[in-house]
Amino acid sequence: MSSHHIVRDDQEPALIIANGAACSEELLGQLLEWSPLVIVLDSAIDRVLELGIKVDVLLGDFDRGFDADSYKEKQYPIEIVHTPNQDKTDLEKAFDYLINRGIPAVNVVWATGKRTDHTITNITNIVQFRNQLKIVILDDHSKVFLLPNKFEKWYPKNTPLSLIPIGEVSGIHSQNLYYPLENDTLTIGYRTGSSNHVNHDGIVTIEHEKGDLLLMECWD
Amino acid sequence: MSSHHIVRDDQEPALIIANGAACSEELLGQLLEWSPLVIVLDSAIDRVLELGIKVDVLLGDFDRGFDADSYKEKQYPIEIVHTPNQDKTDLEKAFDYLINRGIPAVNVVWATGKRTDHTITNITNIVQFRNQLKIVILDDHSKVFLLPNKFEKWYPKNTPLSLIPIGEVSGIHSQNLYYPLENDTLTIGYRTGSSNHVNHDGIVTIEHEKGDLLLMECWD
Repeated sequence: MSSHHIVRDDQEPALIIANGAACSEELLGQLLEWSPLVIVLDSAIDRVLELGIKVDVLLGDFDRGFDADSYKEKQYPIEIVHTPNQDKTDLEKAFDYLINRGIPAVNVVWATGKRTDHTITNITNIVQFRNQLKIVILDDHSKVFLLPNKFEKWYPKNTPLSLIPIGEVSGIHSQNLYYPLENDTLTIGYRTGSSNHVNHDGIVTIEHEKGDLLLMECWD
Repeated sequence: MSSHHIVRDDQEPALIIANGAACSEELLGQLLEWSPLVIVLDSAIDRVLELGIKVDVLLGDFDRGFDADSYKEKQYPIEIVHTPNQDKTDLEKAFDYLINRGIPAVNVVWATGKRTDHTITNITNIVQFRNQLKIVILDDHSKVFLLPNKFEKWYPKNTPLSLIPIGEVSGIHSQNLYYPLENDTLTIGYRTGSSNHVNHDGIVTIEHEKGDLLLMECWD
């Protein structure tokens, strides 16, 4: 297949719109353009419909007297997925839903900002889905994802990159970071690799042996 | 000393204004009213001076060609503390500064929002200061602090409370939480105690044996 042949099917990342702070319409528009499936979490649906976005799935526990069925008329066709299990967040349940549908990748917006407990839980809980779903969380300042044990990507000089260990991460080596890591251990709360940046235009390599390591590509 | 005798000295919490998203002026005003010492981090100084706030200390690494001395004239008297060490964040360096001055407690605003790497690092790194400084991080949605091994406080029914383990926390017991914990273990990224709430008006008790456990009092 030619690389010019654009396929809009379930191989493109789905898009989850969570219930935190809204991102810029520009970022949202870029992500919507390529997404074959748009999932909205719980009461965020009102804010999303105001933006005139076509929603495929509305998912949530729908507590607080929320009337999910009323959206069947406002937004036909829409799949309503009621997930009352209180042991998981709505975002985790949306990840489970995608895994069950065999969708391999997802971008997530509106998962940060507002309540700090939601931000931290949303960001850190992606590590559970390591081998099941490729997850990228985006907002107007950051792009966050879980690193494989060996990660390589081209970046321009000075790109801000932060390494955030979820728990303890050991055996970390880097190439082309301004503050290099050499068989280092990072521990959340005690020693993180926040606010590093790229040394020169070129490939950045980050390897780690053990643990869950998030990379954040940031801009101010 | 009578409880009506109001003392405005270094025993009241200091206030650090960090460099993330601004909070409401109402919250900032409440904290400023009681604070004997206001510390501003790095380039946040411009946003703070626009609000007409008297600043006591300006602290930062002052990279990016920042001219700290120019603020000596704009805001006399002001102490300028240059902290070029790149192994710590400006917020950690401000905590060190307060510990060196013998100040026992601090409130922190503008430490969340904007870049997610800064938010997560600022929140989680407070655990390092367990026995040195009583730290509370506040924004318009959340109030975050580190729990002692036994914590007791009165809350109204339904107050949202989230327990966030920084690493692994074991031997957790709670009383008067809607989702009770009974000798539970919480692990960041895998099992957190986010989005709990208070069962009925009264004392909430949270005990843990091992690890660093944050409590977030939240509102939407």
